[in-house]
This record gives sequence, structure tokens and C-alpha cells, in this order.
Amino acid sequence: MLSFIEVAADSDFSIHNLPFGIFIKDGHHIACTRIGDTIVDLHQCAESGLFDNLHLPHGIFRHTVLNAFIGLGKKVTSAVRTQVQQALTKGGFLDNEKFNKTDIFVSIHDVQMVLPIHIGDYTDFYSSREHATNVGIMFRDPANALLPNWLHLPVGYHGRASSIVASGTPIKRPNGQTMPDGSEKPIFGPTKQLDFELEMGFVIGKDSQLGTQITTEIAEEYIFGMMLFNDWSARDIQKWEYVPLGPFLAKNFASTISPWIVTLEALELFRVEGPVQEPEVLPYLKTEGPKNYDINLSVDILADNGAQKRVSTSNFKYMYWNMCQQLAHHTVNGCNMRIGDLLASGTISGPTPDSYGSMLEICWKGTKPVQMPDGTERKFIADGDTVVMRGWCEKDGIRVGFGPCDGKIVG
Amino acid sequence: MLSFIEVAADSDFSIHNLPFGIFIKDGHHIACTRIGDTIVDLHQCAESGLFDNLHLPHGIFRHTVLNAFIGLGKKVTSAVRTQVQQALTKGGFLDNEKFNKTDIFVSIHDVQMVLPIHIGDYTDFYSSREHATNVGIMFRDPANALLPNWLHLPVGYHGRASSIVASGTPIKRPNGQTMPDGSEKPIFGPTKQLDFELEMGFVIGKDSQLGTQITTEIAEEYIFGMMLFNDWSARDIQKWEYVPLGPFLAKNFASTISPWIVTLEALELFRVEGPVQEPEVLPYLKTEGPKNYDINLSVDILADNGAQKRVSTSNFKYMYWNMCQQLAHHTVNGCNMRIGDLLASGTISGPTPDSYGSMLEICWKGTKPVQMPDGTERKFIADGDTVVMRGWCEKDGIRVGFGPCDGKIVG
Repeated sequence: MLSFIEVAADSDFSIHNLPFGIFIKDGHHIACTRIGDTIVDLHQCAESGLFDNLHLPHGIFRHTVLNAFIGLGKKVTSAVRTQVQQALTKGGFLDNEKFNKTDIFVSIHDVQMVLPIHIGDYTDFYSSREHATNVGIMFRDPANALLPNWLHLPVGYHGRASSIVASGTPIKRPNGQTMPDGSEKPIFGPTKQLDFELEMGFVIGKDSQLGTQITTEIAEEYIFGMMLFNDWSARDIQKWEYVPLGPFLAKNFASTISPWIVTLEALELFRVEGPVQEPEVLPYLKTEGPKNYDINLSVDILADNGAQKRVSTSNFKYMYWNMCQQLAHHTVNGCNMRIGDLLASGTISGPTPDSYGSMLEICWKGTKPVQMPDGTERKFIADGDTVVMRGWCEKDGIRVGFGPCDGKIVG
Repeated sequence: MLSFIEVAADSDFSIHNLPFGIFIKDGHHIACTRIGDTIVDLHQCAESGLFDNLHLPHGIFRHTVLNAFIGLGKKVTSAVRTQVQQALTKGGFLDNEKFNKTDIFVSIHDVQMVLPIHIGDYTDFYSSREHATNVGIMFRDPANALLPNWLHLPVGYHGRASSIVASGTPIKRPNGQTMPDGSEKPIFGPTKQLDFELEMGFVIGKDSQLGTQITTEIAEEYIFGMMLFNDWSARDIQKWEYVPLGPFLAKNFASTISPWIVTLEALELFRVEGPVQEPEVLPYLKTEGPKNYDINLSVDILADNGAQKRVSTSNFKYMYWNMCQQLAHHTVNGCNMRIGDLLASGTISGPTPDSYGSMLEICWKGTKPVQMPDGTERKFIADGDTVVMRGWCEKDGIRVGFGPCDGKIVG
């Protein structure tokens, strides 16, 4: 399948991807997809007649967020994506000179991408065995690194929805209360241990009712798509505050997501089996077939002076608990899901130090600083640094990626 | 100040209260207040011309929630409340036969009250020293019951917004994973330790920007009002899941709020000093003057057969951390607040066993069951039981209350 629009070989946005997002044009929010470096304005596509057969609600692509569009259901949203895909092929509906005069196509360099969804509730899991083990070794007991519940359920907790921002939003270094080692009193000031967490998130595509469960068998019907997620963390604040009720101010100052929601359909080719789960999980957590995805992940630190260093190369396939299990667990008590809810994976660490998903692990509590090409070193993230996360799948010459998830720290 | 509408001496809804809520009439959501057992339809009040001087946006009282109304700001919302108060006095604007023919006044027995706000984010604190101490004694070390951070900051965590329901909504006993004492494997089934937590919540009345702090000095400008809050908890699920990231499925199956938001203005008369805070708190947590409120609280268990028992008599004034401190702490890292966000106190326990705010504490981990008048006993809440929370202030012959916060457990 080839498009009449140019797509670089290493682009995340091949014709096989076609994710959904929201961009701003003339002060208006508009739903779009992307091919190569070209934004495709879905409202203009609708005006051109491309979706006439689908009888979409008028103005569905001019909401400030995608929630109402997602709420039309997968049958409709898949049809929109498929029809755009066909229309973008050589000789397709949109391969017509008359459309050059319209606003259907816009350069990615001329627009601002914004938060694509209204997030009702955001949940963060802790589903990478390697990450949980590393944290357990560092902070508890190397011989019993995993806590007793970890292999029996996908541990998770609620996070803050209001402070989730789109890639590119500057992140202010948070103030907070900490208890320095050896001190008798807590102190107040900017965090000295600002960290990233390499995660991915998935977006709920269908409401469920309070008191009902989404089983693992039907979980995928409720998952619209995925994005990259940086769960910024202030480790010194976290260490002092988190017992006994979990992380709070150490996390809720900001989380960054990549602005494109890549659909499960676009990721279908990249399904893989997850790690073997032993001990056997309870029946409500059982899944059959490949429920993980082979998604390459990377994290770079880009200093203010241009010095750049790749600090992590990981993969989503390392996740011990898959998304269907996370969703089934989350709702097994009757907790309801709403369209736009965001569930994140937790830090994704691989088996080797170069695949760890946080500075805490990469620098092993500050004992192994990262050497930057300009001669400086990092134990955590410095003011002026931009953290750049990327994610992409590749198979059989087909590439589907997420676009960058960036955040620059301002002091 | 006397109204021309009859108000029983023990009513929570004297003319000094006038809280805000949403009721349903003919399938429409309408904003209202209440005096005695009479609902006052604020949309009809507006139509009658009562608020003409305020130039309110048309239809402001016909939204499904109060968020837009609250967003008009305290100056406007206070004026609305004051003008309704004047209009309800003998000889006031509404004391006019012509209004008997309209729909301004409706009996509380003829309407359904619903969730009054859209809650963007919900946070739960843990701010009663007595509660935290009781839990510490039961589950950790009696000699060091409070964890090291507890006296230095108001410990809090994020909860689930989607499953917060209005008083009267039946609560389904949640299923979940637990690890029984002595077992080697977790099991799955309905919780055997379903508990309530007696709490109060406050509603954010003004947006703050990401990256900015709401100081203790200005915190009250951001607090619209309060309600009762039952943080239903499944103790057996909680015990197994909560380490290290805090409560999750043990809480997010449901929380119940009373449907009336009692404004800070209505509570002004009942301000009191809070407990002395020692050690001294960090400067960003300091407050001056009385920041607590003297609010009597009670919890009754009402069995399906009519047997009823008061199991707790507590008071909001016992809170160690006040709302201004909670809000200042929550935002000291730049976390943003949105209108309608809900912040709850955590379980409110007093100094004596009859003032404890959960069955966990009242029955002291099941060792001191509650005797019901029908001869049965309770260590936790049984199917068919209704938990009824109440809250009211009384001073100088003036009574301001919250109305019941009820939830019946269905199996």
C-alpha cells in the first residue's frame, strides 16, 4: 500500500498507522490523522464527502477532544481510519488535484498538537517485573525483591488526571517536602531527584457500568489505542511521602503523553506473546493468545547546549501483565470505566541496564551516573534538559510509530 | 431570621443553610436549594426575576451539574444564596401568593437528588490523628503508631472519580482478590470485610493553573463548600493489594456523597481552632486563626429488618490537618485544581471508641463486635445493611446540616 503523499522510510506515520489526534488551526480544535509529515484534517475530509456513507454526527471532528468520536464505537472509528487509508493511496479519493486547494492537508510544522482526549480518570500500573524487581532490590531486600502480591495481581494506583499534558509542554521542577538522609527535620525546596518513567498508556474506548466487570475476553473491545507516557517523578519527595498510601505529590505535578493515539488495529501486526506467568494466575486474570505488543522504546536526554545521549532502549513486550489483565483486574470489583480514561503501564524496564526505564534504575540510585557527550554527568534530570521518548514497531517492512513524547524541564 | 416556609426545629435545612444541589424533574437536571423539606427550584427563581440584578448566564441553573454555576465565582454564588435567603423570609420576594402557582417550590419527597458536580479529580487525605494512630496500632507498632511523615504533612492519595455516587445509590458488594491468613495462595470472591469510612469532602470552587500554588492564606477562596463522604472500603482486599502503592480496588468500587453542597459561608458561624500542631509545621503549611469547623457527625447501621444502631458519634473538629493545609500541600508542587474537584478528609475518628469512624476501629479488627438490637452482631457491614451518615452544626439556636449520606449494600 503506497500513498501519493511522501512518507520517509523511517517515519512513524506510514499509511499503516493513521493514528488520531487533535490540532489547533485558527484557534479551533480539529481532529486529524497524520501521514509522513502531513496532517490530514478530518473535518475537511468529512466536508469533502469522504465519510458520507458513515452518516457521522455533524461537527464530530470539531470537538475539543476525541471523546465523542471515540464514543461512536470501534465499528465507526475503524471505518473512518480504513476509508482514510484507502483515500490516501495512489489513485484514491483524496488523490485529486481539487483537494490541493482545500485545507485537508497541513504540514506538521505549521500546527500545534494538543491533548487529544478528556481524561476522566487516570490509573498507573506497576507491571514490569524487571522494574519492580530493581526497585525492590534498591529499596528493600534483594533476596525478596518482589512483594508477595506482585506475581498474583497487576498492582496499580490512581493518579492525577488534571496535570496530564501533551508532548512539548514545559515541565516546571516541583517544590516539595523531603527528609534528607541524616536530617531530623524535613526541609522544603525544589526536588533534587527529578526523574522520568518510560511508560505507555492506553485509552478506554467504551463506557462500562458501575458494578459490572470487563473480562479479559472482551477487554480489547474497550481499548481504543495507545500512546507514550512519561510519568515524571520526584524521587526525594516520593521517598518521604509515599508510606503508607502511595505516591502523591511526587507524581501529580505533571505527566506527559505523546499526542497521537495509535489504534489497536494499527498495532495488530505486532502482537507477541508476553512472559510466561508463574505461578498461575487466578481464572479472572487468564488470557489466551498473544496479548503483548512488540514496540521498541527509547529515551534520550537532550541538554540545553545540544548534547544528547540515549539513556534507554527498551520494549513494551517485556510487560509481565498485559493490558487485558490490567483492565480485567481494574474492573473486577465493579469499578466503572469511561471513554477517555487513561491506564498506564508503569515503568517499562527490560532485563539489561541499558533497557531500564528510569534514571533511578539506570544510575542505580545515583551510583552509576550517565556520562553526557559534553563531559557533564546526570544522576537525575537537570534544568534545561529535554527528555525525549520514542516508540515504534517494525515488521515485514512496515513501520508504525508514536511520534515523540517530549518534555523540557524549566527551573 | 424566619421563613414563611415551615422548617422543623431539628431540620438540617434552616434558612441559615441554603446549600446547593441538583434534582431531577421531568427528566431534566435543575439546580436547587432547600429549606426544611421544600426544594427551591433555582431556575424558576431566575425566571421569576429574583436574580435579574445579577445578570446570570441564561440557563445557568439547567446544567446537569453545578460546575458552571460554581465557576461564576464566590461573589456571584454568594449573592444568589443571600438573595434566596432574603426572598424566603416572611414578607420576602417569594412570600407571594402568585408563586404558589409556579413550580418554584417542590416537596423533597417528590424528587430525586443526584450527583451535584462533575468531579474531575478526587483526592483522599488521611488527616485524623486518632484514625492514623488506631490503624498504626492495629497493623504496625503500637509504640510507633504514626509513621515518621504523618505529623509533617497531610498524607493523601488519589482516588477514583468515576465511581462516586450520590446518597441513596445501592452499593454492590465488590469481588476481589484476597490472601486469607495462613493461606499460601490468594483466593477470589466477594469481600468479607466491607467497611465504611466516615469522612467529609470539600469541593473546589476556582481553577488554578498548572505550576502555581494555592497558599494557605488564599485557600478558602478556592473552597466552595462541603458534604459528607463515605469512603467504602474492603479491608481484606486492601490488606493484600495496598503495598507498596496504596489502596486501589479496595476503595474504587464506590464512594457515596451527600447530595447537598453546604457553602463555607453557611459554616462560618461554626469555625473553631484545630488541634495544636506539634512539631511546628513547615512555613508553607502554617495557618492563622480558626480553620476547623465544629460539625457533629454520626453513623448508623440500619439492617434490612429495621434494626438500627448508632455506631459512631464523631466531629469534624478533631481533624489534625485543616482544609487550607490540605489544599496548600496538594498544590505546593504546582498540581492544578479544577472546579468540581473533590478533596476528602480521610476517616474522621475522635479520641474515644464511640467516636471512631470505621468498623475496623469500632470493632478493633473484629475483636469487639457491635451488638445490634435484633440480637445479631456486626464486625463489618452485612448485605442488606444501610449505612447512614449525618452531619450538623448547632450554635446559638442556629442549625445547619448536611442531610443524610446513605448507601445500602446489595449482595
